[in-house]
Amino acid sequence: MPILYELYYWPDIPGRGEFVRLVLEEAGAPYVDVARRPRGEGGGIDAVVAFYAGRHEGHPVFAPPVLKHGDLVLAQTAAICDFLGRRHGLAPDDEADAAHALELQLTLADLVTEAHDTHHPLGAALYYEDQKPEAKRRAALFTSERLPRFLGYFERVLQHNGGDWLVGRAISHADLSLFQTLEGLAYAFPRAFARASADTPGLLAHRERVRTRPRLAAYLASERRPAFNEEGIFRRYPELDAG
Amino acid sequence: MPILYELYYWPDIPGRGEFVRLVLEEAGAPYVDVARRPRGEGGGIDAVVAFYAGRHEGHPVFAPPVLKHGDLVLAQTAAICDFLGRRHGLAPDDEADAAHALELQLTLADLVTEAHDTHHPLGAALYYEDQKPEAKRRAALFTSERLPRFLGYFERVLQHNGGDWLVGRAISHADLSLFQTLEGLAYAFPRAFARASADTPGLLAHRERVRTRPRLAAYLASERRPAFNEEGIFRRYPELDAG
Repeated sequence: MPILYELYYWPDIPGRGEFVRLVLEEAGAPYVDVARRPRGEGGGIDAVVAFYAGRHEGHPVFAPPVLKHGDLVLAQTAAICDFLGRRHGLAPDDEADAAHALELQLTLADLVTEAHDTHHPLGAALYYEDQKPEAKRRAALFTSERLPRFLGYFERVLQHNGGDWLVGRAISHADLSLFQTLEGLAYAFPRAFARASADTPGLLAHRERVRTRPRLAAYLASERRPAFNEEGIFRRYPELDAG
Repeated sequence: MPILYELYYWPDIPGRGEFVRLVLEEAGAPYVDVARRPRGEGGGIDAVVAFYAGRHEGHPVFAPPVLKHGDLVLAQTAAICDFLGRRHGLAPDDEADAAHALELQLTLADLVTEAHDTHHPLGAALYYEDQKPEAKRRAALFTSERLPRFLGYFERVLQHNGGDWLVGRAISHADLSLFQTLEGLAYAFPRAFARASADTPGLLAHRERVRTRPRLAAYLASERRPAFNEEGIFRRYPELDAG
């Protein structure tokens, strides 16, 4: 029997853990989403806290998500996606293409961080309510300049590679993360995303191409998929969504 | 004759390009720092701009640094360091350890971004002078909470691995990036760094262990090493350095 993967991530938000879930689901890899299990069975937030507090054997981790697989304890979303992608046919075989998949994963991570920082420009240690004027200024720059620039970049990458997938000839972990990022942006910034993505039809087609993959479609329709909400990275605050 | 590596990065700051330079230097890999060559020989800022403006053949890139090697065009600091590390004996051979080296590289990248955002909390599109009050608030949270937390984490990683290197039994690209990050933090926040690093003697010893590597020491003493200044990631603004 293969060793189960264990994912440790906050149970009530998609967050960065969702990028890992999508790779595990598309790979058809057996895994347990530990914190989404009942507390009585070792689930809940405490299971996640134990990892970054160092109350576990193995490599120290700075923050969730964390993947555990036998003795391996691995954090950092992009590192986990790269690791799983290489093991489960969701990374290109070619060395240069695999490096590109990681590169794209990291550029998506930058975009995700910038989307998060629209509501927390002064840092995550303060509540949104304590930095609303600053959030409005940062969000205005994000929706007017950064968002179109990022979307335009990924559209160019898609077109450069023939239009179906970001890199190589098949879906990779980078495509899954692009899908999740577009979903989050469309949730958090419906007006700004609609405007910016009008210029990137290839990205919108890519989003549907990923969404309709059989395993992904089954996952997205399941109880395992956490809904976006206002405690995660992508928050729908209308005052931050420039029209 | 081996194909030369070409690095495309802003010529007058260490910035994120410096993490790539350190890997190339410690590897003893032949490379050209293109933008630091005279403009008449294809150097200068224009050589860098051409890449993210898409005026080149090959994979589109979002931002510098960019590594070119034959047909390969690769961006994203951590992806470049991982790629070079694996090719030049500066990444662990073991698959799990190599994933950890990338994980640590990414946690360092997060720390570098947070250090940058102390002076640009509202985004890089505005001058520092246009966001000074916000910068003071963000920097105070960074120096009091985030900086000690990051340094404490890397100290734990070092101790967990025996104290000499972050992962595996030899120096890796993650160790080089840790060195550069500590150098930058000590430059930008001399008071806060001195205070926080008093609790992390292993990190301070590690910094000297890297600095005195023969190839690194030769590089650091050379004209090739750009000095820190107030146009890069790590800026010495005394008003942001809590005492």
